[in-house]
Amino acid sequence: MSLVTNERARAAREILARLGAEGPVRTPLLPVPDSGRERPLLLKPESLQPTGAFKIRGALHAAAVLDERVRARGLVAYSSGNHARAVAHAGKVFGVPATVVVPHTAPAAKVAAARSLGAEIVPVEVSERESRAEEIAESRGANLIPPFDAPAVIAGQATVGLEIAEDVDALGFSEVTVLVPISGGGLISGVAVGLARCRARVRVVGVEPELAADTREGFHAGERRHWPVEARTRTRADGLTAQPSELTFTHIRELVDDVVTVSEAEIGEATGFLAESCRLVAEPSGAVTTAAHRHRTRELGAVPTVAVVSGGNVDRAEPLSSAAG
Amino acid sequence: MSLVTNERARAAREILARLGAEGPVRTPLLPVPDSGRERPLLLKPESLQPTGAFKIRGALHAAAVLDERVRARGLVAYSSGNHARAVAHAGKVFGVPATVVVPHTAPAAKVAAARSLGAEIVPVEVSERESRAEEIAESRGANLIPPFDAPAVIAGQATVGLEIAEDVDALGFSEVTVLVPISGGGLISGVAVGLARCRARVRVVGVEPELAADTREGFHAGERRHWPVEARTRTRADGLTAQPSELTFTHIRELVDDVVTVSEAEIGEATGFLAESCRLVAEPSGAVTTAAHRHRTRELGAVPTVAVVSGGNVDRAEPLSSAAG
Repeated sequence: MSLVTNERARAAREILARLGAEGPVRTPLLPVPDSGRERPLLLKPESLQPTGAFKIRGALHAAAVLDERVRARGLVAYSSGNHARAVAHAGKVFGVPATVVVPHTAPAAKVAAARSLGAEIVPVEVSERESRAEEIAESRGANLIPPFDAPAVIAGQATVGLEIAEDVDALGFSEVTVLVPISGGGLISGVAVGLARCRARVRVVGVEPELAADTREGFHAGERRHWPVEARTRTRADGLTAQPSELTFTHIRELVDDVVTVSEAEIGEATGFLAESCRLVAEPSGAVTTAAHRHRTRELGAVPTVAVVSGGNVDRAEPLSSAAG
Repeated sequence: MSLVTNERARAAREILARLGAEGPVRTPLLPVPDSGRERPLLLKPESLQPTGAFKIRGALHAAAVLDERVRARGLVAYSSGNHARAVAHAGKVFGVPATVVVPHTAPAAKVAAARSLGAEIVPVEVSERESRAEEIAESRGANLIPPFDAPAVIAGQATVGLEIAEDVDALGFSEVTVLVPISGGGLISGVAVGLARCRARVRVVGVEPELAADTREGFHAGERRHWPVEARTRTRADGLTAQPSELTFTHIRELVDDVVTVSEAEIGEATGFLAESCRLVAEPSGAVTTAAHRHRTRELGAVPTVAVVSGGNVDRAEPLSSAAG
């Protein structure tokens, strides 16, 4: 199974840049004062993307590389939230219909955001979302944009890694640890690919909630480990409940240096810290990396650290099932 | 009275860039989705600076251009908050003592932040802060860094305008309105200077709280208008209670196109909107420009708009007087 290349990531970056104000934001690295001279923390705030999460990069890139006439038949996605919103945004940018298949348990705010972008929402049982999305795509001849299991999506997320590499090198760091949340593994696969040509010595470390640590287990076993969906969905980090595919797990095994976990309490502490000390609204899934920097000091060592804050879409309402019920 | 030049702003930008991770962040423009095709809103989030506000730019630049031996005698500032923190940060970066004179009424969080950066805090009555700071600077041979009334400070803030110009031109806008909060006028003076070479047709519009609208009144009268401090400090926007100096007022008269005001309720609505829809923690003073875009639609017209979100240091505690009492 071949990995996405750094060259492909660079091509993705150029394609995305052509979208101007409708494309992803080139997010800066934000130094966190008083995070220590030995292991300064810098945040990569993907929460500031127009859709509130890094998912906009992969979704827009996957849509952009489709043949125009094929794209016109529409985009289809299955997602519990941020990817749905990103595909809805991509539909709007390219002026094509978008359909998102969401589980009944999806956070209401994320679903409402996709709807307000003009997407058709199809609520289903969690276990059916993938098959239902494939069915819809096939019956309409539309294009399924997977949340992570596709090279074009990974190449889009890889632009996060390219930007980090550029900024780390401009700051003159000789080594850096980059912390990335893991769910389906599309983001960390991309980030690792994008960092391949960084001049600094880079360690890429994945972060999972203890309650959804299937990838940590698989990483140490050397092969994917399946956790039942009931186990994975116990965490408050609602965006981190998917599992890697063969494609993303291969990237992780080849390119990632370690995977660490954080507790639910540590995630909660980190979202508060991000709001009060860094002036960022982060969702729990986006805060796990900051939690790891703050609470896994010994495991991570004294190295300048970049924490990817993957998203900021906090739900203020009930889950879809009750909001819509 | 001569204005700060765009050339000086460019020189300031180079000086600040040499500070690397200890310097200001190069903040992006963040497009706000659904803000309208006719008048899209883009945020310039200075709240994401390491000290939580744009003030870091002017303070670091003013300190950087001092002769090294003169700088070693220390920095002195008077400020109700964000400038104090910025000067404390500058003292730390250059390894020289910093002293900040703060009114008893200053927000506790901002003062605590300056203290934690190692600055000496001197609390005084509001009316005495300027004279006391001058006294301290003179007795120690230290360097007074004024909050706005100095070309080196304005040149530092002007780097905000240079960055906006660069991004607006990259996005291909042919015209743009740039909304900037006004207090002492250092930020808007600098932003207007920095925008001078933007290829787009630029309107620079100042925003004040209705309860501290001395500059709007003076702007229309063609000369500075004094409001008593009791009147100006009624607003929740605690960073917008100063008044322009002769130097900043001259910049405003020459370079600014209009000044609008917003109500306290509109400011409150805007801080909520920034947190919920844009995932940014903004202080009331930083939210006035977003409030103007949302509530002064007719006055501002249908033009792509940049709102400078000047700071994000929200106070969670009592004012200094009671917290320390």
